[in-house]
Amino acid sequence: MSSISLTRLTTATKSTSRLYVSPLCKGTINNQGVALHSSLRRPHSSFRKLTSSPFTKWFPRFVSTRLMSYGLNVTPGRYRKGVLLVTGAATVAGLAVGACHFQRAEMASRMVQTEKDEGDILERCKSFMSPPVTDVEVLQQRKDEMSTRMEMLIMETQAAFCKALEQVDGGTFKVDSWQRKEGGGGVSCVLQDSKVFEKAGVNVSVVFGSLSEEAAKQMRSRGKVLKAKDGKLPFCAMGVSSVIHPKNPFIPTVHFNYRYFEIEEEDGSKQWWFGGGTDLTPMYLNQEDAIHFHGTLKEACDRHHPQYYPEFKKWCDRYFFINHRDERRGIGGIFFDDLDSPSQEDAFAFVKSCARSVVQCYVPIVRKHVNDPFSPEEKAWQQLRRGRYVEFNLVYDRGTKFGLATPGSRIESILMSLPLTARWEYMNKPANGSKEAELLEVLRKPKEWV
Amino acid sequence: MSSISLTRLTTATKSTSRLYVSPLCKGTINNQGVALHSSLRRPHSSFRKLTSSPFTKWFPRFVSTRLMSYGLNVTPGRYRKGVLLVTGAATVAGLAVGACHFQRAEMASRMVQTEKDEGDILERCKSFMSPPVTDVEVLQQRKDEMSTRMEMLIMETQAAFCKALEQVDGGTFKVDSWQRKEGGGGVSCVLQDSKVFEKAGVNVSVVFGSLSEEAAKQMRSRGKVLKAKDGKLPFCAMGVSSVIHPKNPFIPTVHFNYRYFEIEEEDGSKQWWFGGGTDLTPMYLNQEDAIHFHGTLKEACDRHHPQYYPEFKKWCDRYFFINHRDERRGIGGIFFDDLDSPSQEDAFAFVKSCARSVVQCYVPIVRKHVNDPFSPEEKAWQQLRRGRYVEFNLVYDRGTKFGLATPGSRIESILMSLPLTARWEYMNKPANGSKEAELLEVLRKPKEWV
Repeated sequence: MSSISLTRLTTATKSTSRLYVSPLCKGTINNQGVALHSSLRRPHSSFRKLTSSPFTKWFPRFVSTRLMSYGLNVTPGRYRKGVLLVTGAATVAGLAVGACHFQRAEMASRMVQTEKDEGDILERCKSFMSPPVTDVEVLQQRKDEMSTRMEMLIMETQAAFCKALEQVDGGTFKVDSWQRKEGGGGVSCVLQDSKVFEKAGVNVSVVFGSLSEEAAKQMRSRGKVLKAKDGKLPFCAMGVSSVIHPKNPFIPTVHFNYRYFEIEEEDGSKQWWFGGGTDLTPMYLNQEDAIHFHGTLKEACDRHHPQYYPEFKKWCDRYFFINHRDERRGIGGIFFDDLDSPSQEDAFAFVKSCARSVVQCYVPIVRKHVNDPFSPEEKAWQQLRRGRYVEFNLVYDRGTKFGLATPGSRIESILMSLPLTARWEYMNKPANGSKEAELLEVLRKPKEWV
Repeated sequence: MSSISLTRLTTATKSTSRLYVSPLCKGTINNQGVALHSSLRRPHSSFRKLTSSPFTKWFPRFVSTRLMSYGLNVTPGRYRKGVLLVTGAATVAGLAVGACHFQRAEMASRMVQTEKDEGDILERCKSFMSPPVTDVEVLQQRKDEMSTRMEMLIMETQAAFCKALEQVDGGTFKVDSWQRKEGGGGVSCVLQDSKVFEKAGVNVSVVFGSLSEEAAKQMRSRGKVLKAKDGKLPFCAMGVSSVIHPKNPFIPTVHFNYRYFEIEEEDGSKQWWFGGGTDLTPMYLNQEDAIHFHGTLKEACDRHHPQYYPEFKKWCDRYFFINHRDERRGIGGIFFDDLDSPSQEDAFAFVKSCARSVVQCYVPIVRKHVNDPFSPEEKAWQQLRRGRYVEFNLVYDRGTKFGLATPGSRIESILMSLPLTARWEYMNKPANGSKEAELLEVLRKPKEWV
């Protein structure tokens, strides 16, 4: 069954509100989150199977209206923070996130052929945490444009990741939709001081406007020359980014970010590129976790180019480097920027594989350690490592620096990457041979994990 | 009694180890910390009188040897962290810090005439937290040079401030002397997780070497053109800097920094300038504290130029600005840079007045609030404000950025300005009319306090 037929199935089941179908993957689940037909495989043995569970959905007023016009049984919900809550029996199709990602290998061969036909825009929007940033009608009109396809992907990735985390945690993300005066806006989802997560942020932003040549140069690491008209370059930038800080020091922090840029030059031609990456920051080294994490990323990369994983793994180790500490922020993963080859279609297919791997990269590790006991000393070490995380993000991270320096940025969304709590001790040095020293060793000398 | 006669008194009492005399000020105290003769006045009524208490002194091996060669009754002490501890009856002259600063007004008229004759170098070194960075013999040989006089001032300021804080806290600063491979070194004093202070750092550094023209330009905010020989400029930079983070949210955080630069140009001529400032970061606004703090600074400034306080107060408000939050770090104080007028002697006299005001600016505020009760919510607000402090220091502070980017910097000394603990909550917004909102109001719209 290809994604095309899945899409048809999704459409066909619109009125059967008890059957959920994900447009992202093969397989259906009922509203108890149980896979109806699946051929799940577990790539790394000790990680538990991910399952979906019932969830409450948010829809904006205009979407709920549209749903009704599509013949759906939608009970008008209540508003919270400007978005409409649709509850109970009215809950409709969502992403069977967890189950899907186990099937990536099977899906891979079908991806390229189905990329352009990813299902009905409005139908896909139903699974999002909030309406997309761009008006749904505009997205429908421009459904084949890369900016639309990418916006749909980042909204889907946000929803998939948030829901997978909600399942583990039991809490509910707070969803804020915001607009940028200069053009565009975003959707910030934050789960703070919850059961499993101290602070979990998953942010989507879609911004556009006009860049100075200087700013455009900064955005692109290779510094390609862009010809501006009257010193200005119309641009569009969008991405999904997330940082998850769990409470238990044996659950690592994860970060991912997938983004797309378009800049229009003087002659009307478009320059475009993708960037992104997923990286892990454990407080204590766990070899099995590292192998699972890197293995999952390698699998996503290998479907597109054999050199992607090794090159982007090295790039990640270079990028997440806290120069003044002579150590990396974590044990890496992948990082890439300025990706504009071999074709826009191929680059997008790769980014899609990466974005769709984030749940599988991380959630099994969370589940594995969620009940690990820990001491106050281990918690204090986590807090110190959080301090290092803050140092990297505020001193070196290009995205954070660019965001803080950009007028009209939503600061709360940029700085939601910072942990709830952090600590700086003067001259802390772990004892030789300790678990803490073992981590520092690998932060100073990155390893090959797969 | 002028500072000159005080110096003579200090010399005269060398062998009476039970009588302490400060070369910084008029008045003597016995080893119980009781003023023997004083004419203390309290500039702001609600602030308690500062008293000195017995303290334990650190001396390096070579100083203790020298002390013995000077006929002093020095019992060889024990080593800790590479410096020699001289205890009990062997304790010798120290700074009667607290009492002194109340007498500034009386001393003012005598300051200029005594600047060049500040007492015997070796004698003054006895009060320091550690030996100075530059070898004492070298300092003695070059005692009239500004670099020597400034190094003595910053070492004295460090000792005065540390001892005043130790008296309030009951704890003892950890003292680390360190060397910089490229030239120079420093003395870092840290009191961490103690009774009153969560983290108190007082750092001296004296570094020298050769700067690139680019780096020299960065160091100087006015960007004066400096002519280098073969692209290099021999330089010397020194300063004392401190950040104090107390535990009680009603005791504000304080920061000060006084520094001196010398750069030698191609033709051998020296460019020099001073910089510095003292500023306060309360978590809750207390008008009386603000008036005391600014009033003390204004007094120090007014002795030198009527425009210094108003101009440097404004500069401070401009400098400690967290642009992305549209708020200042705290309620300001004074800040200045590139000060090279009206003469080196006058500029130094001004910097000396400022440096000698730090205890009086801050310690009475600490004493006033040391037993204030506070709630967990007030503590949490303090933690959030600490997060803002981290943001300013890592994103904007020129000193921190310069330090982190300078090869061979001692990172632990640069980042000891960061609090022990900090917190970032997503979308925290104090209720209208709350004490927290009152603080934000003044951080957004700086006030005139005196």
